Amino acid sequence: MADAPTVTDQPASDAERRHDPRVRGFASDNYAGAHPEVLAALALANGGHQVSYGEDAYTAHLQEVFRCHFGPTAEVHPLFNGTGANVTALQAVTERWGGVICAESAHINTDECGAPERVGGLKLLTVPTPDGKLTPELIDAQAFGFTDEHRAQPQVVSITQTTELGTCYTPEEIKAVCDHAHQLGMAVHLDGARLANAAAFLDLPLARFTTEAGVDILSFGGTKNGLLFGECVVVLSPDRVRGVPYLRKAGMQLPSKMRFVSVQFEALLTGDLWLRGARHANAMARRLARAVARIEGVRVLRPVESNAVFAILPREVSERLRKRYRFYFWDEATGEVRWMCAFDTTEEDVDGFAAAIGEELSAYAG
Amino acid sequence: MADAPTVTDQPASDAERRHDPRVRGFASDNYAGAHPEVLAALALANGGHQVSYGEDAYTAHLQEVFRCHFGPTAEVHPLFNGTGANVTALQAVTERWGGVICAESAHINTDECGAPERVGGLKLLTVPTPDGKLTPELIDAQAFGFTDEHRAQPQVVSITQTTELGTCYTPEEIKAVCDHAHQLGMAVHLDGARLANAAAFLDLPLARFTTEAGVDILSFGGTKNGLLFGECVVVLSPDRVRGVPYLRKAGMQLPSKMRFVSVQFEALLTGDLWLRGARHANAMARRLARAVARIEGVRVLRPVESNAVFAILPREVSERLRKRYRFYFWDEATGEVRWMCAFDTTEEDVDGFAAAIGEELSAYAG
Amino acid sequence: MADAPTVTDQPASDAERRHDPRVRGFASDNYAGAHPEVLAALALANGGHQVSYGEDAYTAHLQEVFRCHFGPTAEVHPLFNGTGANVTALQAVTERWGGVICAESAHINTDECGAPERVGGLKLLTVPTPDGKLTPELIDAQAFGFTDEHRAQPQVVSITQTTELGTCYTPEEIKAVCDHAHQLGMAVHLDGARLANAAAFLDLPLARFTTEAGVDILSFGGTKNGLLFGECVVVLSPDRVRGVPYLRKAGMQLPSKMRFVSVQFEALLTGDLWLRGARHANAMARRLARAVARIEGVRVLRPVESNAVFAILPREVSERLRKRYRFYFWDEATGEVRWMCAFDTTEEDVDGFAAAIGEELSAYAG
Amino acid sequence: MADAPTVTDQPASDAERRHDPRVRGFASDNYAGAHPEVLAALALANGGHQVSYGEDAYTAHLQEVFRCHFGPTAEVHPLFNGTGANVTALQAVTERWGGVICAESAHINTDECGAPERVGGLKLLTVPTPDGKLTPELIDAQAFGFTDEHRAQPQVVSITQTTELGTCYTPEEIKAVCDHAHQLGMAVHLDGARLANAAAFLDLPLARFTTEAGVDILSFGGTKNGLLFGECVVVLSPDRVRGVPYLRKAGMQLPSKMRFVSVQFEALLTGDLWLRGARHANAMARRLARAVARIEGVRVLRPVESNAVFAILPREVSERLRKRYRFYFWDEATGEVRWMCAFDTTEEDVDGFAAAIGEELSAYAG
Repeated sequence: MADAPTVTDQPASDAERRHDPRVRGFASDNYAGAHPEVLAALALANGGHQVSYGEDAYTAHLQEVFRCHFGPTAEVHPLFNGTGANVTALQAVTERWGGVICAESAHINTDECGAPERVGGLKLLTVPTPDGKLTPELIDAQAFGFTDEHRAQPQVVSITQTTELGTCYTPEEIKAVCDHAHQLGMAVHLDGARLANAAAFLDLPLARFTTEAGVDILSFGGTKNGLLFGECVVVLSPDRVRGVPYLRKAGMQLPSKMRFVSVQFEALLTGDLWLRGARHANAMARRLARAVARIEGVRVLRPVESNAVFAILPREVSERLRKRYRFYFWDEATGEVRWMCAFDTTEEDVDGFAAAIGEELSAYAG
Repeated sequence: MADAPTVTDQPASDAERRHDPRVRGFASDNYAGAHPEVLAALALANGGHQVSYGEDAYTAHLQEVFRCHFGPTAEVHPLFNGTGANVTALQAVTERWGGVICAESAHINTDECGAPERVGGLKLLTVPTPDGKLTPELIDAQAFGFTDEHRAQPQVVSITQTTELGTCYTPEEIKAVCDHAHQLGMAVHLDGARLANAAAFLDLPLARFTTEAGVDILSFGGTKNGLLFGECVVVLSPDRVRGVPYLRKAGMQLPSKMRFVSVQFEALLTGDLWLRGARHANAMARRLARAVARIEGVRVLRPVESNAVFAILPREVSERLRKRYRFYFWDEATGEVRWMCAFDTTEEDVDGFAAAIGEELSAYAG
Repeated sequence: MADAPTVTDQPASDAERRHDPRVRGFASDNYAGAHPEVLAALALANGGHQVSYGEDAYTAHLQEVFRCHFGPTAEVHPLFNGTGANVTALQAVTERWGGVICAESAHINTDECGAPERVGGLKLLTVPTPDGKLTPELIDAQAFGFTDEHRAQPQVVSITQTTELGTCYTPEEIKAVCDHAHQLGMAVHLDGARLANAAAFLDLPLARFTTEAGVDILSFGGTKNGLLFGECVVVLSPDRVRGVPYLRKAGMQLPSKMRFVSVQFEALLTGDLWLRGARHANAMARRLARAVARIEGVRVLRPVESNAVFAILPREVSERLRKRYRFYFWDEATGEVRWMCAFDTTEEDVDGFAAAIGEELSAYAG
Repeated sequence: MADAPTVTDQPASDAERRHDPRVRGFASDNYAGAHPEVLAALALANGGHQVSYGEDAYTAHLQEVFRCHFGPTAEVHPLFNGTGANVTALQAVTERWGGVICAESAHINTDECGAPERVGGLKLLTVPTPDGKLTPELIDAQAFGFTDEHRAQPQVVSITQTTELGTCYTPEEIKAVCDHAHQLGMAVHLDGARLANAAAFLDLPLARFTTEAGVDILSFGGTKNGLLFGECVVVLSPDRVRGVPYLRKAGMQLPSKMRFVSVQFEALLTGDLWLRGARHANAMARRLARAVARIEGVRVLRPVESNAVFAILPREVSERLRKRYRFYFWDEATGEVRWMCAFDTTEEDVDGFAAAIGEELSAYAG
């Protein structure tokens, strides 16, 4: 077997293309594929032997890449997916008897099939929020019972940036959360599945609203921003964190050929690919929000501060529209829908979708 | 953004090549990279939107691919890695109070940081074996205490094919294990991280020593046979198995962009890529064993029935050799070493390594 | 050593009496000791050898005792405490991926240090309630996402009778919960730490609002009704329940000298000791509520349907009062306090406490 | 309700005596009942209200009692049973990724239905031993892989005193284990279900072979030495131990009416009741061993260093004997049986049993 293939001589695969690559919807940013540059990076890292389980050259270099973005204390631990990153990180800042204060709408509470509880033994101490954001006041609703053995001990506050409701914390808001948590002896975890979208919205470097705001550990998302797969646990306060390598392995999140996770993140984070993709997705969401604002019968419910638009329209219209474009109901009870844009959503996609919304509403009204 | 890229127009990545793709060692089959055809398949599946979490066209098709290999009852569940496959599968055939009878040398016992215990709550009931293989007699050493509430209930026997010691069960041996386990009311799980190597060694279709031998559920390995990442839980006896989708998600093993796992397996399993790679790796191991058999001072310890060679040579020689080629001590106490061949190991690699062994032994003897 | 001692010849112990047995407060029914008849029963069961771990004559007989109260399908499993009973029972009606719908105020959610999550891997799906009671409508707030692998599957509804807020479900209310849960494929667990108080309040046999209402499994409390320790898991629908003996043992809840748990329950449940104690405690709570209703500055907040009185009074008064009588704040935010009566609370205790409340309020007002 | 009852005026219970208190066997020390002094102590502690969950006068005093025996650093945490004590203690000296080095014959490995794995997430790293005792050399068989994330990290060595095989470590042997473990950065846990029997055999104070030998945390057994129920976690090295109160509660081992556990231990440990009972049980085992040594056809297999006798005799004889006296096969494969003496075993019991063995052997030989 010769040297690794270059990008121009990839042999034909026995697999077949089974989908139309021109079709895109508004269901989720993980319906998108990968940046072509990310595929190219995989080819670069391929060939020859590299030590497995993270002792490869790509993972070593990735430390520097993350330190550029998050400051000199940052330690990066690549792994498979977002749930894995969250549960690994939360365990690393809690004892076996720890509780996690989080918003009721947090992904860890609503979308992970109980993984924090089952794998981490973590009790989630949830707080209803108006907009997906925690505040010191909201935290206080669960920050009690310290030293009471009958209560899972609140040991970490987990926030999501941007939130599951498409809103974005300011650096000051995050700092207020961190200061409050630290005063109470708790650590702060940030679920950054869409951290790039926050940087794009805030137009600020990543460290500005993470490391500098006091976040102790974060889950940095790659998948939703154009990787095939891959997330990272990023340790920002090493003194507060214990055992990430063991927790990653025991949590079944240690990739053997880690070079292929690391090189994707290198491709994403060395230049501005991460930011371009996120800016574009955010811009497409704003374009969509603007377009539907002009359509009678649709109401955009929340500030559009990332790549998501939440709207209310007649359920019957939504149902008909879903036969043309894939998207989800966010709240079955109210009929609220969520439209997500991705790094590969085009202006034509948005305009076509807005037109379709108008058509279906007209047909419904007529 | 235009249509998905084809294999010839991949743009340059911001990542850099950081390793010499001509360097290969004998440490592990997961030090190797990916088949170029597998990379090509990723490009095929890229572009456009596909439903996430397994409702994509590639995963749907993969069901057929696996049924071709494992028979019409097979159900395939792609996931991230081997530990994840094992722990998901074992939970799916046990109750919360279940125990797992396995060889002391089993990967689930020695190499998974306690993931079966921590994530699955599973007690491993281990048995020392001479060659990594369980037999009905060996199983009986732990198959007792049924209905005794003080004992984790033996509910599944887990075997590895090929074993961690490089040996390969015959179909008859597996059938004997399965018949015995079933008679005692236990299910059978097979850890098939190197199942392709077994098919290559036995020169038999995969179903012959799995489905037809009575195996109920298996972990099918892709990573060690040329994927970037990816394993599958394959259910063969649906009546004995419960809850794989929930266990996969709660075990943090559900890939969001699952098309990229599935299409790799399609590339591997549609033609004979899986078998070619495994045959080649096995052949290289045999070549290595033959070569060192001619060298005085090295003793090959176990039958070479897959892509592994286990040998004893003076520890000082091993230490010097490891400065030239990467490999592991298998047993620190005895000085036994393990040399693994991969799908990309070349004849030149083997011959060069054998020559190096000879050189170091001569230097040592001299 | 001679035959077992009779109740009249107990030798002096090296232990000393370290408390004043005349002092009683209103903090909790588990501040009380044990019925003297319960101590006498222990002496009866003492002496000689009895098979451990539940194969003794007392535990065998206890099956009949519970069938008298709960009907011919009932199976009783004695264990140590209420948390153990709850977590054992909930696991017995769920899969590893199960979720538990319960009131936000449920003991399993607020007072068990995350034991359901940590020991059982259970996700609690909580619902705010006005009065501690679930209804079909409230259940629906969490009864969704069936077959969605991203969500812990709602598999059991857990209610508490009497509730943590001192209210009591009618048989019809429990039947409505059970019918609704069963229609949705869920089981029903009842936390009956104070089930005797419910029977006393409703003036109905135990089966009437458990077995006959459709409850599948319950935790039957002994400790709060005059045992030294001891609770039971009572299986009412054996077809819906799996593995209680294994779950009890693996949950560290299997008493070795089980005769001493069983004989306490025999003493409690053979005659009407269980009912006398509960009726008395309830009556004392009503007496207290009536007494404080006449005191200006105290407001009883909730219906007094068991042995608890919840009240609001000036925080400063509560603080002073707590120097004379021990009790707890129920809600630090509102200043709501909880006063519990026990089987051994006397009329004099109540009248003295009411007088003390009056005195402190006068002092405060003055 | 009047003052607490005294020991002479216990009222009749509705429960009945259901066993013959003159019958005793040789199956287990937990087939025995309770010391009459222990029952008397319960009556002493009864009556009036005491703060629950351990803030009572009896538990406060128990700290002093244990410090008398284990030295001034000792902290005692009463709980329900031995499995609970072991799992609580082991978690308190390990991280989530910890492994426990123990003998293959350890109770935590063979008799707890996987509780250490299921509740604690602990991986047991077992070592075969000739006599149930670990040594530095045997520990080394599992004390490797420190910092290797693929391996559950060995963080504690757990020994049993006296062992499950009836043998007793000398203080020097325990010190050697502790020194070795500490040098390797591991803590030492001692399962002292029969610690009193060791003190009796060694004729040494408890601290001599625990605190002074370097043990960090231990499970102190009460049930097998004449309590109704109750064990304690005793912390000897507070600096190595974290979170016992939380782990006890989350492990469902926190007794609400803790005074009734504590006062039993006070009765046991204030005078020499603990030692008398253990000495007597040990003496009865020696008497039995001496008696059967004179019977042809029985072979005592192990040194009798506690209250257990292990013997080999024809299986058919054992089977017939078991119809007259209850006892267990220890090893079904070899036919080895275990005979246990308790604090209440009499000389007549032993002599009668030895005679029965002789009779059955004669009948068999004849």
